[in-house]
Amino acid sequence: MQAHAVTTPHAPGSQSALRLRNRQAVVHALLTGGPATQADLARTTGLSNATISNIVKSLSQDGLAVTEPTTSSGRRAMSVRLQGTRAVAAGIDVGRRHVRVVLTTIGYEIIAEDSHSLPIGHSADEGIEAAARLLERLVAEAGVPRTSVIGAGVGLPGPIDRRTGTVLDGAILPAWVGTSVPDAFGERLGLDVLVDNDANLGAMAEIAWGERKDAQDLIFVKVGTGIGAGLIIDGRLHYGALGTAGEIGHTTVDPQGPFCRCGNRGCLETLASTSTMLASLAPSSTSALSTADIVRNGLDGDSATLRVIDDAGFVLGRVIATLANFVNPQVVVLGGPLAALGDVLLEPVRRGLMRHAVPVVGETTQVVTSSLGDRAEALGAASVVLRHAGLSPSLRSLLDGKHN
Amino acid sequence: MQAHAVTTPHAPGSQSALRLRNRQAVVHALLTGGPATQADLARTTGLSNATISNIVKSLSQDGLAVTEPTTSSGRRAMSVRLQGTRAVAAGIDVGRRHVRVVLTTIGYEIIAEDSHSLPIGHSADEGIEAAARLLERLVAEAGVPRTSVIGAGVGLPGPIDRRTGTVLDGAILPAWVGTSVPDAFGERLGLDVLVDNDANLGAMAEIAWGERKDAQDLIFVKVGTGIGAGLIIDGRLHYGALGTAGEIGHTTVDPQGPFCRCGNRGCLETLASTSTMLASLAPSSTSALSTADIVRNGLDGDSATLRVIDDAGFVLGRVIATLANFVNPQVVVLGGPLAALGDVLLEPVRRGLMRHAVPVVGETTQVVTSSLGDRAEALGAASVVLRHAGLSPSLRSLLDGKHN
Repeated sequence: MQAHAVTTPHAPGSQSALRLRNRQAVVHALLTGGPATQADLARTTGLSNATISNIVKSLSQDGLAVTEPTTSSGRRAMSVRLQGTRAVAAGIDVGRRHVRVVLTTIGYEIIAEDSHSLPIGHSADEGIEAAARLLERLVAEAGVPRTSVIGAGVGLPGPIDRRTGTVLDGAILPAWVGTSVPDAFGERLGLDVLVDNDANLGAMAEIAWGERKDAQDLIFVKVGTGIGAGLIIDGRLHYGALGTAGEIGHTTVDPQGPFCRCGNRGCLETLASTSTMLASLAPSSTSALSTADIVRNGLDGDSATLRVIDDAGFVLGRVIATLANFVNPQVVVLGGPLAALGDVLLEPVRRGLMRHAVPVVGETTQVVTSSLGDRAEALGAASVVLRHAGLSPSLRSLLDGKHN
Repeated sequence: MQAHAVTTPHAPGSQSALRLRNRQAVVHALLTGGPATQADLARTTGLSNATISNIVKSLSQDGLAVTEPTTSSGRRAMSVRLQGTRAVAAGIDVGRRHVRVVLTTIGYEIIAEDSHSLPIGHSADEGIEAAARLLERLVAEAGVPRTSVIGAGVGLPGPIDRRTGTVLDGAILPAWVGTSVPDAFGERLGLDVLVDNDANLGAMAEIAWGERKDAQDLIFVKVGTGIGAGLIIDGRLHYGALGTAGEIGHTTVDPQGPFCRCGNRGCLETLASTSTMLASLAPSSTSALSTADIVRNGLDGDSATLRVIDDAGFVLGRVIATLANFVNPQVVVLGGPLAALGDVLLEPVRRGLMRHAVPVVGETTQVVTSSLGDRAEALGAASVVLRHAGLSPSLRSLLDGKHN
């Protein structure tokens, strides 16, 4: 999390510091666990029922939460959920040819969303400027005060140095290499900025907005010109020692296979990326094909396209089997442009999984395509802000009542 | 955790209940994080310095902790560590031909340890009886009161149903299949019993007793007649949806390779287990070989043995590369009987890792052999008890001062 830290004006042991910390604890519990009864909140936070009741009352008065009648274990209870536009998160997804921005409330409601074209090879400045303008326009259109925006998440395809937020070599955005994303975006937007790669944000989006929000262990696999994965383990994104966890594109499938840009041979990417699929289809095609053509022709039942999808899907299923054997997730979600193929892609992937996983894992690991489409990265970026909102100075000062 | 729950005699909101909960929090912090200063303990538990000071004083009086002078950020401070034999954990490792028991204090000191032979194909009753007698002997020899033993961890090779603690088919102990380990051991020993498989316990032993206690993400790979892994992620054992996480023995390495007992082809186990190595060496050997012979002949530089180790090690390194790409651990620890080969095994494994991992992972993932030898499982079993000791009724009643 980047700069702009507001130092607390309270002595650490004071009543007001305690009050702020308790409000933060309740908001954090609601942000990460979703709507809850007051009794649930008391259990999660360790605070007394009376304290929870006071905090919920003041959050409602501040326009940050609402209470609704519900039943819990057969008894009537009040369910508390965050809501309203007093605190809003921005999600920004920068791609090779586009920038997309979403605005979501603290209650995970999407209130504005749009995208804008960018030229291939655009500079970081161009991309940041386009994102900033789009963000300001959406804030204005949504009619929320600019001060409600508590932070921005930024998603970029490819490797990012986790310690500094700097774009590393090998990214699909060559002109961005060396840019410190939190600094550059933070300065232009005047916001706290968090950054992560597309596969990690896709995974975050699935547990916040997808159809398997309940999954504690979920793997998101993004298939595009590269192949990457984001690992949710125990409900949280797993980064590993260097922040490179989820590297599946360079799994050796065939040690004598095609040479890969990484210097190895027979990596998954050489056998199942969209670039490989397009290269395989080129000889039998009269015009230059795009990934959209693979999706359209696959859904139309074109036999060459189906064979290419079948081969790529089966080998992808084999690598997913290895990953599922290791991690034993509840669900694997396929994202990226090919997700639109639905069952046409899922069938060979599931066949590869069943063939290569140990039986109990093959039979119980659910494999689905993402329902979030090309919104996954921007939504994931917004959810990262919400998950970390307890740490955000903007939300902290809001909870502290200084904007009241 | 199994039965024998002591219901607390305190009203949940009472002073004495609060006092017990705070003592539990401090003990839990010391059990999982090791020795700490009082200021550290205040930070970790959220309790005030005065409360921490009182709790530490009473834990010392009860013979559960000691304080020692230390320096923290250049200042003098008191370091607190758990010690003494008022609370002792038992670790029990049952193998095909042996049972091993260790006793460790709440401060992770080993105070007694021994093993006993068992006939191949022994029944669960025989094994449990031998373990129980060995445990009672060690308790007597160590001179600790039997009531000090707060629980027992049990390690078994092969699959265990995580929900029930029942030994599943496919285990190396055929006569144990169907046995509920926590029930059977718990009844005989009169203790809370936790059970896990050998690879998971090996991983637990490494972060409690091994040389990389600092690692947050660690993979323990046990190579024997089977090959399994235990995954420490974010400092905790990762189980996954069904509890089968860490299944690496059936990673497909060569889809046209040898048929495997799992019904697949070319699994890692068909290429790198000790059984495969022994089968490869059989034609060139005049007498029947054992795993101990592989170790001895490998260390002696026998060329056929070295070639077999080289082939198995390289393919093991390839699968470790895939796992390291996915999980990005700080360190991979090789355990099981072949660990005694040291560099002779590590060299081909590291070569396979460097060849097949993405460069940054290959260069930074440390691969070592375990220094714990055949004590790993029993030590891991004891550490599971200590990690969960905060939940143990025996420790709870001890903390509650009822044995004073």
